[in-house]
Amino acid sequence: MNKKVPHDAILRLSFYLRALKNFEEENIKVVSSKQLADFLKINHHQLRKDLSYFGHFGKKGVGYPCSALIDKIKTILGLDKTWSAAVIGFGNLGRALSFYKGFREQGVYIKVAFDVDEKKINKEYNGIKVYSIEQLEKIIKKEDIQIAIITVPKYAAEEIANRLSKCKIKAILNFAPINLVTSSQILIQNVDFGCQLAYLTYHLKFLKP
Amino acid sequence: MNKKVPHDAILRLSFYLRALKNFEEENIKVVSSKQLADFLKINHHQLRKDLSYFGHFGKKGVGYPCSALIDKIKTILGLDKTWSAAVIGFGNLGRALSFYKGFREQGVYIKVAFDVDEKKINKEYNGIKVYSIEQLEKIIKKEDIQIAIITVPKYAAEEIANRLSKCKIKAILNFAPINLVTSSQILIQNVDFGCQLAYLTYHLKFLKP
Repeated sequence: MNKKVPHDAILRLSFYLRALKNFEEENIKVVSSKQLADFLKINHHQLRKDLSYFGHFGKKGVGYPCSALIDKIKTILGLDKTWSAAVIGFGNLGRALSFYKGFREQGVYIKVAFDVDEKKINKEYNGIKVYSIEQLEKIIKKEDIQIAIITVPKYAAEEIANRLSKCKIKAILNFAPINLVTSSQILIQNVDFGCQLAYLTYHLKFLKP
Repeated sequence: MNKKVPHDAILRLSFYLRALKNFEEENIKVVSSKQLADFLKINHHQLRKDLSYFGHFGKKGVGYPCSALIDKIKTILGLDKTWSAAVIGFGNLGRALSFYKGFREQGVYIKVAFDVDEKKINKEYNGIKVYSIEQLEKIIKKEDIQIAIITVPKYAAEEIANRLSKCKIKAILNFAPINLVTSSQILIQNVDFGCQLAYLTYHLKFLKP
């Protein structure tokens, strides 16, 4: 694992990737770091610094070739491979994530889901079968799942994470409103919607009359 | 608007807030920057730098008093005020966000929702009434909505953002998979689930046999 690259630089690579795809869709072949940074409303020094962790891209005074940089970032982020994922908790959020096209475009395929609700168990939704949470360990092994996406309520999240750490799961994307702690074996990324909203209220408070 | 504070520092404040609440729930009155940083698996220099944008907290060699720092961060992030929000697009994700307790804890109240589906329009779900998207401008004005949360499909997002920019909306939290661009009047935060997942695949690719 490359320890030198800051956490946030890795997250920003995804934003660069999405912006580059936008440029490519509009048939723009080459972008300057300034254009890309302006489009994303970020500092272009930051952009160049982030990319510099992974090598030299683009030509000085010319810019980055979109298509080559897209491929390069995809490789850096591991998005040129395919991954199998499971959604744990098939409520509104679990469903939304199960059907989220963006994940498939990244090579992450949600193969199964788990829930406690008898009405959902053993049913299939858009090709995703819902299993009982009791079968978690068995199905994860059988389906060779690498990534778990947790959307269960807060009180259930830690127990699920503990059970997952005993399976061969390699990474957890956690949407439950609790900071799950990583064991040495398993990688956890905690997602907090409130954090994105607080960014807005931070700025709004300056505008409020 | 304080332009000197980096975007990511503001986002990180929310993580610090959540972690401090965890400490408080466990009856821990004072934490050191090292404890807090270790808990969040981040660098404690980063933590101290982020907080330093907003003043001096804690006593050297003693640490931060949890409860006072929680209040201070809430004030910084505008979470000591109340805000009215609307969810636009009442699909799985829209519903999940409408019922997300974390928003209310932050003082953000989702008052109404909008959709194009006749089956949902004019119905109430957990106290949130769904209106036709045609009534967007009228209801936003009537309900004095300040924040819009967009969860419509990609193809519809730009039109909605344009319509919102003509209302008195002050900020948009955008979950549609497109980078919406900010006009001078309106603040936009784009959320990308793929970005969080790519952080995991970035690290996983080093682990793959």
